[in-house]
Amino acid sequence: MITRSALAAALLPLLAAPALAQTAPDVAQARDAALNDTLGYEIVSGLTTEVGPRPAGSAAEARARDWAKARLTALGFKNVRIETYQMAVWERGAETAEVIAPFPQKLRVTALGQSGATPAEGITAPVVLFRSMAELNAAPAGSLAGKIAFVTHAMARAQDGSGYRQFGAVRFVGPGIAAKKGAIAIVIKSVGTDQGRGPHTGQTNFGKDVTPIPAGALSVSDAANLERMLARGAVTLKLVLTPRQIGMRESGNVIAEVPGTDPAAGIVLIGGHLDSWDLGTGAIDDGAGLAITTAAAKRLLDGPAPRRTIRVVWFGAEEVGGPGAADYFKRHGGERHALVAESDTGADRVWRWQATLPDEAKPIAARLTDALAPLGITRGDGAAGGGADVGPVARAGAAVIDLNQDASRYFDYHHTPEDTLERIDPAQLRQNIAAWTAMLTIVANAPEDIGPVPPAKRGAE
Amino acid sequence: MITRSALAAALLPLLAAPALAQTAPDVAQARDAALNDTLGYEIVSGLTTEVGPRPAGSAAEARARDWAKARLTALGFKNVRIETYQMAVWERGAETAEVIAPFPQKLRVTALGQSGATPAEGITAPVVLFRSMAELNAAPAGSLAGKIAFVTHAMARAQDGSGYRQFGAVRFVGPGIAAKKGAIAIVIKSVGTDQGRGPHTGQTNFGKDVTPIPAGALSVSDAANLERMLARGAVTLKLVLTPRQIGMRESGNVIAEVPGTDPAAGIVLIGGHLDSWDLGTGAIDDGAGLAITTAAAKRLLDGPAPRRTIRVVWFGAEEVGGPGAADYFKRHGGERHALVAESDTGADRVWRWQATLPDEAKPIAARLTDALAPLGITRGDGAAGGGADVGPVARAGAAVIDLNQDASRYFDYHHTPEDTLERIDPAQLRQNIAAWTAMLTIVANAPEDIGPVPPAKRGAE
Repeated sequence: MITRSALAAALLPLLAAPALAQTAPDVAQARDAALNDTLGYEIVSGLTTEVGPRPAGSAAEARARDWAKARLTALGFKNVRIETYQMAVWERGAETAEVIAPFPQKLRVTALGQSGATPAEGITAPVVLFRSMAELNAAPAGSLAGKIAFVTHAMARAQDGSGYRQFGAVRFVGPGIAAKKGAIAIVIKSVGTDQGRGPHTGQTNFGKDVTPIPAGALSVSDAANLERMLARGAVTLKLVLTPRQIGMRESGNVIAEVPGTDPAAGIVLIGGHLDSWDLGTGAIDDGAGLAITTAAAKRLLDGPAPRRTIRVVWFGAEEVGGPGAADYFKRHGGERHALVAESDTGADRVWRWQATLPDEAKPIAARLTDALAPLGITRGDGAAGGGADVGPVARAGAAVIDLNQDASRYFDYHHTPEDTLERIDPAQLRQNIAAWTAMLTIVANAPEDIGPVPPAKRGAE
Repeated sequence: MITRSALAAALLPLLAAPALAQTAPDVAQARDAALNDTLGYEIVSGLTTEVGPRPAGSAAEARARDWAKARLTALGFKNVRIETYQMAVWERGAETAEVIAPFPQKLRVTALGQSGATPAEGITAPVVLFRSMAELNAAPAGSLAGKIAFVTHAMARAQDGSGYRQFGAVRFVGPGIAAKKGAIAIVIKSVGTDQGRGPHTGQTNFGKDVTPIPAGALSVSDAANLERMLARGAVTLKLVLTPRQIGMRESGNVIAEVPGTDPAAGIVLIGGHLDSWDLGTGAIDDGAGLAITTAAAKRLLDGPAPRRTIRVVWFGAEEVGGPGAADYFKRHGGERHALVAESDTGADRVWRWQATLPDEAKPIAARLTDALAPLGITRGDGAAGGGADVGPVARAGAAVIDLNQDASRYFDYHHTPEDTLERIDPAQLRQNIAAWTAMLTIVANAPEDIGPVPPAKRGAE
């Protein structure tokens, strides 16, 4: 598994920076040792078992912060702390859908985050089918008055998860568009690549001038059933969705560090998010990201102190628009961040990596290429974005590395009841940890300066 | 696909019985034409879309009977009729489970059929883990007083579905055993081979002298989570299950026939069951069995009249102990049934066939072997049982043929919300229809007498 070029890459820092030669660890050795990691699985198993679902701003998320602080402290991380903030909280209520005519049967539905509410007894109305966002957009103003809009689509399975941005629009903005056209409610086919009964929840955004309407996602299977009914004629649906806005609540980020020897070299910021949607236990979204980044950082914590401080953040409230990321940036945006990286696409293997680096840090990329190749990871051509939580720091100019996970099956389970520990393949989780260990070993010890990325070169977030 | 031996097999009836030579159809031709069948999928798609879940004794089951009668009549079947009976009906209520301490989180649960009820506000009690039925059986009398029993196991995936009988015991009789030992409730790990969140429901039997206790199945994933919690210490669970016995209701069988030319030769009885559990739409259990047997019979209906009458029965109330089968036997057990066969293990391909035949009908088996081989179906060594619905007629002496379906993934979905149309692979469904078409063509036209099977040779049901 250890190629000669990987070995050469591992030795490069020693050759380039004799002053560091005594302490810089062997990248290949660190990487390969991480293939036997057990801590990562322990973290995601512990978090999903001992806390479980942890919606942003909930008591469970608070318990998860305490759990994290205790665990990170016990692991020996330094400067472990919780940083709290206030946020508006939306809370799920009852949720049922039922075809009243012509084919009475229940359908599985879940409310989208920020959905408006029906009366407790529900609403009953005819369904209007739109096979795409383009069809919904083309509906005349007012044409949906008194109707329940139903938007379908066919999200494509893709290794790079690229279908999510396009097909996710039906959830991100579809409800607001339907509301503007007069719909009294909307149900969408879940944004997912599965064929199952578990609806995919997720945040929607009505926009400032729109009063939220009840907005739910049917499971992919139930949506297909409703489409078959509509192919036979008109359908009347009864919908009960009673979520509430419950006001301001506390949320927070948990921070832990591996102190570096050279404060002027900047911080390497890594992490994932601690909150999860309520339907599953948040194993792949994003207990896995916490497990991967923390287990990798722990490996550097147990070795010689790296040049750069590695800061691991378990961000709060990512799923609902990122108040955790905003609070972090407000508090820490002024500190020097050399590089940021985030893990938030499940636990399947890293298949590609991409970077946005300043020119002077380019030799790092060459060493990464060689160190990651033995794990079957190829270098991509695109810019790195970092993700929702480290995004604000990236947009402010920090260098970014993306270790892209195989997303082929991620959107089968994303935001559904099926996001549980069973969806994690321990062997692939360990491959992630090995990749992150190699990356951190190289980046945190790089003798090169990692300065700001010029604005023109910054990747899309 | 058409081997020389299959062709020879198809010609055998012609050679053996010159009187039938003008009308006996070509088996291979009928079989291969059925590989292009569209009716089967239309039936299961129509039933799951236009009726959906159809619990025994419910209004939905009644709608399904009307649907069936109309559809079978439109298809041209003869003597289409509904035969009703009364049955005691158990109806699902609210169902939630929640770990109260030490790790508060909700677990997905569903009540087992015949479960007792908790108060509306639920019960809260410590959980006692039993890793097997043997452990539960070994618990001292009275030792479960005030406790919720929790029985786990590890149902094995098997092509012949043989794990169900052994591991299903935890559902069939586990609740009654726990009740006798004083448990105030029981939750079991679902009897299933999946790792998902959909609990597997199904009937349990408390026995005559036992007062039913609340009895639920946790999803396999939730049961694994609860096991991990118990590995860390004591767990307190809150359980709400409020099913009710609602008294006597009407259920029924739907019967349709392909009339034969020789009433003295006996009836070939085939079918599946019309009722389904309420959580899914009853696609694989057992819309598929209705689709397969009906589509195959329709192919004979459209050809020359067979020697024997083919009677297709869509049985009611199979899932709750078989009052439909009992009513059929009460009304029709005295008629001469030459042979029975049932389809009730999903829609995946037939991989094996077995028969229990009287000696004089043995040549039929040789022709079946050759006719089914081109579909990849091998002859098994065991006796044929027929299944729950045709079982009473089989036990009374009728010959039996089993066309065994591949059950490898059947118990991933069995009795769960995931039993929907998406679980049906149209190509495998068509292979089933081709196998049934070949079997019916041979059996219904066989010139041999098919008399009663001697008691000593009757297969286990």
